[in-house]
Amino acid sequence: MKVSFQGEKGSYSESVAIAYFGIEAKTFSAETFESVLEYVESGQCNYGVLPLENSLSGSIHSNYDLLIRHNLAIVGEYYLRVNHCLISQPNALIGDIRQIVSDHQALIECKEYIRSLGMPARAISDTASGVQMVRDQEDYSLAAIASKHAADLYGMKILAEGIEDSPLNYTRFIILSKTSITPQENSKTSIVFTLKNKPGSLFKALSVFALRDVDLVKIESRPLVGKPWDYLFYIDFLGSTNDEKVSRALKNLDEYAFSIRVFGSYYHHNYTIPNSY
Amino acid sequence: MKVSFQGEKGSYSESVAIAYFGIEAKTFSAETFESVLEYVESGQCNYGVLPLENSLSGSIHSNYDLLIRHNLAIVGEYYLRVNHCLISQPNALIGDIRQIVSDHQALIECKEYIRSLGMPARAISDTASGVQMVRDQEDYSLAAIASKHAADLYGMKILAEGIEDSPLNYTRFIILSKTSITPQENSKTSIVFTLKNKPGSLFKALSVFALRDVDLVKIESRPLVGKPWDYLFYIDFLGSTNDEKVSRALKNLDEYAFSIRVFGSYYHHNYTIPNSY
Repeated sequence: MKVSFQGEKGSYSESVAIAYFGIEAKTFSAETFESVLEYVESGQCNYGVLPLENSLSGSIHSNYDLLIRHNLAIVGEYYLRVNHCLISQPNALIGDIRQIVSDHQALIECKEYIRSLGMPARAISDTASGVQMVRDQEDYSLAAIASKHAADLYGMKILAEGIEDSPLNYTRFIILSKTSITPQENSKTSIVFTLKNKPGSLFKALSVFALRDVDLVKIESRPLVGKPWDYLFYIDFLGSTNDEKVSRALKNLDEYAFSIRVFGSYYHHNYTIPNSY
Repeated sequence: MKVSFQGEKGSYSESVAIAYFGIEAKTFSAETFESVLEYVESGQCNYGVLPLENSLSGSIHSNYDLLIRHNLAIVGEYYLRVNHCLISQPNALIGDIRQIVSDHQALIECKEYIRSLGMPARAISDTASGVQMVRDQEDYSLAAIASKHAADLYGMKILAEGIEDSPLNYTRFIILSKTSITPQENSKTSIVFTLKNKPGSLFKALSVFALRDVDLVKIESRPLVGKPWDYLFYIDFLGSTNDEKVSRALKNLDEYAFSIRVFGSYYHHNYTIPNSY
């Protein structure tokens, strides 16, 4: 089992690959999000892991764009609680630390903690390479903010855990494959569709789900840049394309929508806190 | 006229403050997005500028959270085409450049261009401070990626313009004030509301707009972390709270919604390409 993920070994994406597929899975580092998908399309990997939305920073539209441009199916999802650690050399103490490195996003997410330490923080390209820097540093003064997984992987020490300002920090990842699946129960389906702008067109489109008691769990409109008045909608709902009411709703939607793409049906990740809403 | 913005002088947020209010406006650099709002609340600034969504990276949920936590009104909007420049010392030539610095997001947005130059790029905290680094550097080998405004402000030279990979890169900023306005025409209104999870509750909520021919221009659901099955929705629609059909729709929505917050009505920024959809 080969799984592609974006970033260096030890990144949060790799943590998801291991959590989802188990430690026997072989993980393949990809430089960009697009190459995560290309590894799967070319058959070099069986699956790919892609972040799609974060509870604080929102949907990653550019990754939705990758889904649209490539012909892969969503076959799973995973909600990762982002749990940042302060990581140092094995013999360092917190009093030794003089500077902190991490990626820009992680530094923002840990701003209060960094402020409480009163230490300068420097933005680098990604969290895992910060831990590599700590490992390769001669003195004990440098610490990185990254995942527990990254600390373990590079044999470094965790000085503090859960240092993010908000405990409500979750990222939803999806699992991609060349072949779609049709789960029998506890399923969720993701689609994207475009509508021609006519008054009430969105209302009609949503009626195909409401009339059949299909529960929406996400809806998001997105401006189609360069095409004023055309809409693009992302919708997730409970149920699988196998369910009769779902397949009827999608047929009905086809009467209103300009185009529809079903990304896939998959098992709903029933993570206790964030995902079902 | 005093306007707060996040980041160093020369940031994209400051560009918006100047574009919106003119060069006679006094701009106030705020360290965090929250302090942008605090400057307005305390009366130190008349207005604040806040990014709310980007065409590639999506809605900035954490800034929506700030809107919810603070009692300010949206009184304007501005769509900024993100136009990155490669910036060097005045006497440098492109052949002198050996390293590029910018914030993480800008480096991602210019990845293809940086790759074509075959040069190492280093992530730093924000685009404007990269231009400061270039100014303070002794040799000509360093270039920064930032706005034209930042190059002008620090007296540095633009080696290349429009170096972002995608021309579809727009950020929507809002203008905040303590006092709401009621535009008479070409208006847009932003609200947030929560719904109790009942089958079809979103459909009912949207019907209050559809039945009155109020055109939605944005809809986005958001998981309420820690409150499974409770929804939070952001909606923008054309029209002002002054319009009778809008005030009726909002009264009707009150029958379904758990809570409603009207952020404000304001003039719709009719930027040619991205905003009307």
